[in-house]
Amino acid sequence: MQSSDTKDEVVFQTPWFQVSSKKWPGVEHPYYAISAPDFVAIVAVNAEGHLLLVRQFRHVAGRMTLELPAGHVEIGETPEQAARKELAEETGHEADTFELLTVLAPSTARFTNRLWCFYAGHARSGANAQIEAGMQPVIYTQGLRALLDEEDFITSGSCAALFAALVRGKMSL
Amino acid sequence: MQSSDTKDEVVFQTPWFQVSSKKWPGVEHPYYAISAPDFVAIVAVNAEGHLLLVRQFRHVAGRMTLELPAGHVEIGETPEQAARKELAEETGHEADTFELLTVLAPSTARFTNRLWCFYAGHARSGANAQIEAGMQPVIYTQGLRALLDEEDFITSGSCAALFAALVRGKMSL
Repeated sequence: MQSSDTKDEVVFQTPWFQVSSKKWPGVEHPYYAISAPDFVAIVAVNAEGHLLLVRQFRHVAGRMTLELPAGHVEIGETPEQAARKELAEETGHEADTFELLTVLAPSTARFTNRLWCFYAGHARSGANAQIEAGMQPVIYTQGLRALLDEEDFITSGSCAALFAALVRGKMSL
Repeated sequence: MQSSDTKDEVVFQTPWFQVSSKKWPGVEHPYYAISAPDFVAIVAVNAEGHLLLVRQFRHVAGRMTLELPAGHVEIGETPEQAARKELAEETGHEADTFELLTVLAPSTARFTNRLWCFYAGHARSGANAQIEAGMQPVIYTQGLRALLDEEDFITSGSCAALFAALVRGKMSL
């Protein structure tokens, strides 16, 4: 997706992301692009039609959040494998089918990575569920209108994946 | 929203964002938080019920995108003022009422800024509309299902704001 006439230079690096300056011909100032692994968000619903969420402390935001299960695609993993792993680690649930709803850009102004949004219906408690430390799974019974009013439900990527699930007819308001 | 017992240090800076390392007591590795100005996204609909979008080249992503009008909240501006300005600059439209749909976090894992999502109904062409260079306004007539299938409609924040508009009953599928 990158034009061959840009000139990129890594200017800052952490274990989780790196910043590159991108110079475009005819544009005076460089653009700064943040590279990070792709990630996944999973709209998972159990047999009763209730949404699976996770409550966790987010150190960067300095607060608790209530989000869809989500996480990075590790090297050597497909996005679907990452989605299965994250659903299990964050909610203790599994599902037969993970359907790709859409692939988005978390931030077209800053990031170059992608957000893969999956739908997993008829999710059920896994036989050997080992929930990751710090993750508090939530089976949310109150529907999407109440969810948007939850103080801790603030994650843009969760809303984006739920938009795709609504548009694809996987959920209703 | 930041706890007083963290220790922050700015480790990298650009004109558009800065990276801080955040050390939490009892946590071995620092977290890296990216600070940037808050931004707004506007779900604006004209009298015919058609959504106002903007097509533009995103240098960081290296491609064209189709997005909701959106932009930074500048210093001294309220989020609503920013929303009015961005709608005018990117689509040439204005509206009487800008209703706050929700306030989200663009990325709870990386960013500390906020995304203010507004709804502007009965938007109309402004008398002295001056559309910013590089912005191609689009009046989208095909509805949200077709929109999600548009190749260039990839921006997570646009989907998140549209989710809020659906939940608040401002739009329908």
